[in-house]
Amino acid sequence: MDPAHTYIVIMAGGGGTRLWPQSRRSRPKQYLPLCPGGETLLAATVRRVRPLCPIERTLVVTAAEQVAEVRRCVPELPVDNIIVEPIGRNTAPCIGLAALVAARRDPQAVLAVLPSDHYIGDEPAFQAVLARALEVAGAGHVVTIGVRPTRPETGYGYIQVGPGEGGVHVAESFTEKPDAERAARYLQAGTYLWNSGTFFFPARRIRAEIDRHLPPLSALLAELAEHPERLGALYGQAPAISIDYAVMERLGRQHVSEAEAIRVVAGDFGWNDVGSFTALCDLHPSDEAGNQAIGGGPAPLFHEAARNLVFSTTPQLVVCAHVEDLLVAVTEEAILVLPKARAQEVREVVACLKESGRSEYL
Amino acid sequence: MDPAHTYIVIMAGGGGTRLWPQSRRSRPKQYLPLCPGGETLLAATVRRVRPLCPIERTLVVTAAEQVAEVRRCVPELPVDNIIVEPIGRNTAPCIGLAALVAARRDPQAVLAVLPSDHYIGDEPAFQAVLARALEVAGAGHVVTIGVRPTRPETGYGYIQVGPGEGGVHVAESFTEKPDAERAARYLQAGTYLWNSGTFFFPARRIRAEIDRHLPPLSALLAELAEHPERLGALYGQAPAISIDYAVMERLGRQHVSEAEAIRVVAGDFGWNDVGSFTALCDLHPSDEAGNQAIGGGPAPLFHEAARNLVFSTTPQLVVCAHVEDLLVAVTEEAILVLPKARAQEVREVVACLKESGRSEYL
Repeated sequence: MDPAHTYIVIMAGGGGTRLWPQSRRSRPKQYLPLCPGGETLLAATVRRVRPLCPIERTLVVTAAEQVAEVRRCVPELPVDNIIVEPIGRNTAPCIGLAALVAARRDPQAVLAVLPSDHYIGDEPAFQAVLARALEVAGAGHVVTIGVRPTRPETGYGYIQVGPGEGGVHVAESFTEKPDAERAARYLQAGTYLWNSGTFFFPARRIRAEIDRHLPPLSALLAELAEHPERLGALYGQAPAISIDYAVMERLGRQHVSEAEAIRVVAGDFGWNDVGSFTALCDLHPSDEAGNQAIGGGPAPLFHEAARNLVFSTTPQLVVCAHVEDLLVAVTEEAILVLPKARAQEVREVVACLKESGRSEYL
Repeated sequence: MDPAHTYIVIMAGGGGTRLWPQSRRSRPKQYLPLCPGGETLLAATVRRVRPLCPIERTLVVTAAEQVAEVRRCVPELPVDNIIVEPIGRNTAPCIGLAALVAARRDPQAVLAVLPSDHYIGDEPAFQAVLARALEVAGAGHVVTIGVRPTRPETGYGYIQVGPGEGGVHVAESFTEKPDAERAARYLQAGTYLWNSGTFFFPARRIRAEIDRHLPPLSALLAELAEHPERLGALYGQAPAISIDYAVMERLGRQHVSEAEAIRVVAGDFGWNDVGSFTALCDLHPSDEAGNQAIGGGPAPLFHEAARNLVFSTTPQLVVCAHVEDLLVAVTEEAILVLPKARAQEVREVVACLKESGRSEYL
């Protein structure tokens, strides 16, 4: 394909709280300096794709209240390339809208849709996989990147693939997050890849799939194509549904012909979804006792302390003494002390805060 | 004695770091809101003695850099009643200076010298003991209050006493902080009391004792009596020595006649020297799981957490989840996470900060 048709779409509107109090509704993790060296995940995502596509054809989809964060993290992004969702409606409408915008600029557009909040350890390897995925998409396919699993992870979705050719496979089926036993089986089978949450397709093809599988969104996009000024009024009517559920899962080899089936480009590039404080630990170096400090606060004092993670974005000096395996997360608004092994349970804490009427901290 | 001669002297110049980061060199614990309800220890100390002595005869000795804190905590104190030590020289010069100031106002002055940073649970009982101590001092004695021990504490000095009459004993000898074995023996013997760090005497008598036992200070006080304006120039030459070591320990029955020996008024009034974070815990209520919150920050969230102490003076919400027996102390400058059982080791932390050149946090 001609790379001049490439559009990169970065989905940056989500707001998780799995890294609370660092991540908040108004400051999701893509805007936090989580990379080694302090780069934000969004800035790293944009920087990473530059060799494949100029900034003029990089689009960022986000929420109105996050536009300022996007501009702060990616000042070089043309303002017209920020697509503002009037309200979050999950990934299917988001991608439909992005495809509409790209197709308006170039009817031949081939899109790479990427999450804004993942970390990639091996950028050249990632760029090679990305280029390959775009190439396959340029031939008319819907494509995703599958990450070769290295552990029986229960926190990710999996894609079962058929035999590959040059690293490109046909998707057999998509699965939800498995339990531990199934995850172990998937790992051993060797025919399952982690679903990376990336999507590649010609704008025209995804519109066709939406027309087929999600008529309400299809109708909405048709109206927006005619009347772009109605976005604010209409977008809230879009079905809040993920592209995985609405489209991807229906394009496995189990449902469609091999010609129509999704292509999966397998890759290995140090992928980390930064989905928890423990995932975050994997990105950062530690001292001899296994303690880690991130976030940009002053260097903590670890005294007779081992394997602690201090994540602070305030000028307060954090001292951990005679403690082990703790997470201490500090922001201007809140301080969380939690064993690292319970990092998943940040969600409980968030639920407690909601229940006790203290949502202002979320 | 005529209570019109009573002067209360409160020693507020000390600067400890046993409650770091709450207590700092520039903000020792007497100025912190450590009492239940948030009163500072200094304010409580002044308030407690009001039934025995009007504020006009209450003197506070402090350091120049702490005058503002004194005025903030005790706004009703006449400015002339703040005695400023040009430099800290331990308690003997401090008490000599206070005796000089009091004697200048009233040669018959009888002084009660009290620490500014202790907590008293039973104030009426304390006031009764204080009145008794002043009465005995009014008869010409050097007096101290001895607290009946309730546990084999190794953190306090002890006074061995002879048989008492109406709760007043003759001091046999003074001992330093004992080891655990000796402390247990003292507790069992029943003739040892905790040294409360309080002193009562006529101004004239303590001057005579200083003349006898500490000639360099005696000469200095004589010169200051003639030339009060030389305080700043001369005070630094005073020997830095405690009143216990310089005078009290030499006035045990083992060294002097019964007539000269120190009198000890035994008392029981919920005394707490607030000498550590664990001592602080004893002053405050806890929730059903044994968690405590002090300092005035927003109510912490304790989630599946037990027996933690959160001491915060910032607006940050502190969340302790799935942790037990931790101390989390938070100030604008620093955050300390330490097992409560290791609370004594705050001093190690302070030493580390000094060594690593981060004294600005102390």
